[in-house]
Amino acid sequence: MKRIAIYPGSFDPVTNGHIDIIERGRQLFDQLIVAVSDNSLKSPTFSIEERTSFLRQAVRRSPHVQVEVFSGLLADYVKTKKAVAVIRGLRAVSDFEYEFQMALMNRRQHSRFETVFLMPDEKYTYLSSSLVREVSRLGGRVRGLVPAQVETALRQRLRS
Amino acid sequence: MKRIAIYPGSFDPVTNGHIDIIERGRQLFDQLIVAVSDNSLKSPTFSIEERTSFLRQAVRRSPHVQVEVFSGLLADYVKTKKAVAVIRGLRAVSDFEYEFQMALMNRRQHSRFETVFLMPDEKYTYLSSSLVREVSRLGGRVRGLVPAQVETALRQRLRS
Amino acid sequence: MKRIAIYPGSFDPVTNGHIDIIERGRQLFDQLIVAVSDNSLKSPTFSIEERTSFLRQAVRRSPHVQVEVFSGLLADYVKTKKAVAVIRGLRAVSDFEYEFQMALMNRRQHSRFETVFLMPDEKYTYLSSSLVREVSRLGGRVRGLVPAQVETALRQRLRS
Amino acid sequence: MKRIAIYPGSFDPVTNGHIDIIERGRQLFDQLIVAVSDNSLKSPTFSIEERTSFLRQAVRRSPHVQVEVFSGLLADYVKTKKAVAVIRGLRAVSDFEYEFQMALMNRRQHSRFETVFLMPDEKYTYLSSSLVREVSRLGGRVRGLVPAQVETALRQRLRS
Amino acid sequence: MKRIAIYPGSFDPVTNGHIDIIERGRQLFDQLIVAVSDNSLKSPTFSIEERTSFLRQAVRRSPHVQVEVFSGLLADYVKTKKAVAVIRGLRAVSDFEYEFQMALMNRRQHSRFETVFLMPDEKYTYLSSSLVREVSRLGGRVRGLVPAQVETALRQRLRS
Amino acid sequence: MKRIAIYPGSFDPVTNGHIDIIERGRQLFDQLIVAVSDNSLKSPTFSIEERTSFLRQAVRRSPHVQVEVFSGLLADYVKTKKAVAVIRGLRAVSDFEYEFQMALMNRRQHSRFETVFLMPDEKYTYLSSSLVREVSRLGGRVRGLVPAQVETALRQRLRS
Repeated sequence: MKRIAIYPGSFDPVTNGHIDIIERGRQLFDQLIVAVSDNSLKSPTFSIEERTSFLRQAVRRSPHVQVEVFSGLLADYVKTKKAVAVIRGLRAVSDFEYEFQMALMNRRQHSRFETVFLMPDEKYTYLSSSLVREVSRLGGRVRGLVPAQVETALRQRLRS
Repeated sequence: MKRIAIYPGSFDPVTNGHIDIIERGRQLFDQLIVAVSDNSLKSPTFSIEERTSFLRQAVRRSPHVQVEVFSGLLADYVKTKKAVAVIRGLRAVSDFEYEFQMALMNRRQHSRFETVFLMPDEKYTYLSSSLVREVSRLGGRVRGLVPAQVETALRQRLRS
Repeated sequence: MKRIAIYPGSFDPVTNGHIDIIERGRQLFDQLIVAVSDNSLKSPTFSIEERTSFLRQAVRRSPHVQVEVFSGLLADYVKTKKAVAVIRGLRAVSDFEYEFQMALMNRRQHSRFETVFLMPDEKYTYLSSSLVREVSRLGGRVRGLVPAQVETALRQRLRS
Repeated sequence: MKRIAIYPGSFDPVTNGHIDIIERGRQLFDQLIVAVSDNSLKSPTFSIEERTSFLRQAVRRSPHVQVEVFSGLLADYVKTKKAVAVIRGLRAVSDFEYEFQMALMNRRQHSRFETVFLMPDEKYTYLSSSLVREVSRLGGRVRGLVPAQVETALRQRLRS
Repeated sequence: MKRIAIYPGSFDPVTNGHIDIIERGRQLFDQLIVAVSDNSLKSPTFSIEERTSFLRQAVRRSPHVQVEVFSGLLADYVKTKKAVAVIRGLRAVSDFEYEFQMALMNRRQHSRFETVFLMPDEKYTYLSSSLVREVSRLGGRVRGLVPAQVETALRQRLRS
Repeated sequence: MKRIAIYPGSFDPVTNGHIDIIERGRQLFDQLIVAVSDNSLKSPTFSIEERTSFLRQAVRRSPHVQVEVFSGLLADYVKTKKAVAVIRGLRAVSDFEYEFQMALMNRRQHSRFETVFLMPDEKYTYLSSSLVREVSRLGGRVRGLVPAQVETALRQRLRS
């Protein structure tokens, strides 16, 4: 049986912390689908096409990794993909309770998959997409925190 | 002396976690007033009338429990009602600091009541009104997490 | 129906934070039993008689408060006393998870009482019996943190 | 390639929370080795033979699960077994920082495996071996929290 | 060498907790610059001129303390001022992770200053500008939590 | 006025995380005294002489840093040294509440110094002396986590 895992998120934009989790997660499963959420309630900085494109570029040399868009309930999407696991990065205590809430709600959706938490490299413990956007907006450096392509895009999009 | 307690909240909408706290709290006091806050800064999913109606339906068989609307400062409302306690459910660490902040601010308002924290059943530890709304919006199941009437109302209101 | 609450602890020794909780708790119930645990696994600084005596002295002017010794399972003791509630002070996040663990385990013991968490005055947020013992042992001041009688006893017992 | 995961612990004694994690973990990997630590600094309640025997009994109908004893550094043991992952249950914030500390130290040991965190059923969120021992010692009920065989053994060992 | 420290914030409005940190911080450095952030994404309750004016009034008798406005990246501002430290008040666990995130991001900006965390008096542990605004809006008392001038301004601005 | 700071601890043994804090702290003050506590309740792995010697070796090239032994109450020692600040490294949430407790108790001792919290480099976030001892005892690698001299000493002392 081929084991498939899903790594869902907004990825607005992808950071090196996300890529670190992808690299770790793909070793554990036969296939890893990075699933970019299109449930946009708020206005994202990058469109779903941009976010997906940054991710595809970032994982282009990682075997068994695919990037897809999903909308609707994560639990439904996981069932469609016949995945056995959802991967989430766990960085800090503030992540913890939110993630547990989501994992337990997913269990309520007649789902049979597990949420698997992985730890990023400690140098990404305090990294998030929103922090990267905020720093970029103020003209700060995000080199080493996001892929080069994303760094350029942030500079063009957010500095004014 | 009859001891009255207040259980305040937005209840947008009431969940089974709230009802669990009501059942626990009403054993400890002679009267329990569930006080639905009308301090709406943001647009609620359900109107104050709907939220109150769901609650009244949910507690219709619970003796010594009343549902009321309040606006303004909680401390003032508690004084008007001559209540000795305010009840709050405490689920997780993220609740903790917010609740302490509110409890201490209430003490500043010349108030003489205590904030009493109760623990819901562990199956409601990660349940909240906002999670219920979010899952409903995406078409997920909330059966067992809210009263049946609320489940129906969520489906009508949020799915589109 | 008279409502009885139990405030259990080791009280080795009682601090002003404990007394603050007793004063708050006794307003909410018809009777408050301060229950000093005799389940001593480790060697306490003060004997069960000393700990009980300090407490009796501290609450001698508080109506409806009694001090008793208990051993064995708290849930059994609560049933014997026909109490409706167990009171616990909740100070900080580190208390939180331990207290929840105990409260849930008590629910498993066929018990019908609630654990009620109260917040001490913020000036006692970081106070504990073990901190008081440690500071006394090193010759520090604990005035204002424990009753005068306890302050004297600590000085005699711990400084050398 | 067959993927092996290790679930290490003291299991003094195994609880239903541990068994819940084993059931979840074994779906994700081709083989799951439950590894009972023999690095006993303190005196355990049950011997390494008893702890192993309780576990073997508990997982006797779970395919692809083995119970073994290990001593020394976890990272060395994982390398010997050619495992790709170490599984840890994550229950509460207090677990979180300890587990991260251990996971990062394991990464320092030239190891190439991932630590994978799984969430137990919420009814086991506040369950631990030490709580079970403590409650048993005081004569409390642990039915539903440990396997029947462990319940009997606890009663014989700890009540006096 | 004269050592300069920066205490940055929105100060919308300044609270007695902020003033407590200023008093503590100015003892440790030769000069303390209170830097009011003008990076307003959202609409503040008080204008940058009002916020600065409240602060100047509050520190008018504190030697070596200056109030300034800054915009852009904090790390750039600190470099311009040749400051050795940025001061932040640390109140509760919820502050902790946010502050660490910011401190680490600042280290990424080629900066050579340290973030120095100070603890306010425990009576300000749960105080924040947003809480003060919320309570004022509902007609509550904030005496003792903000300077008198701010109390008056809040009453005029927020009650209606 | 020359500003002196104290960095107290057990340092059993010094880790690279401690040294990181020393390097950060010494930039902020005119003199930094690393104060090794001799209040040994439990049996340390290294004697007070060894711990002091490791530290002296580690800071031999750091200007304005001295290593001393102290016993008794920290607040008394700080007064003797006429220090304005006590430095503490703050790594994780679990440190946070303990450190606040100590800082507040120090304020009770008629002290006029501030506790200043500094953040170590993120690669030391989860590092502690006790973890280093535990890993060494089991034969693990601590290279890069402690000074070379300490690494050797740990190997000789703890492996058997």
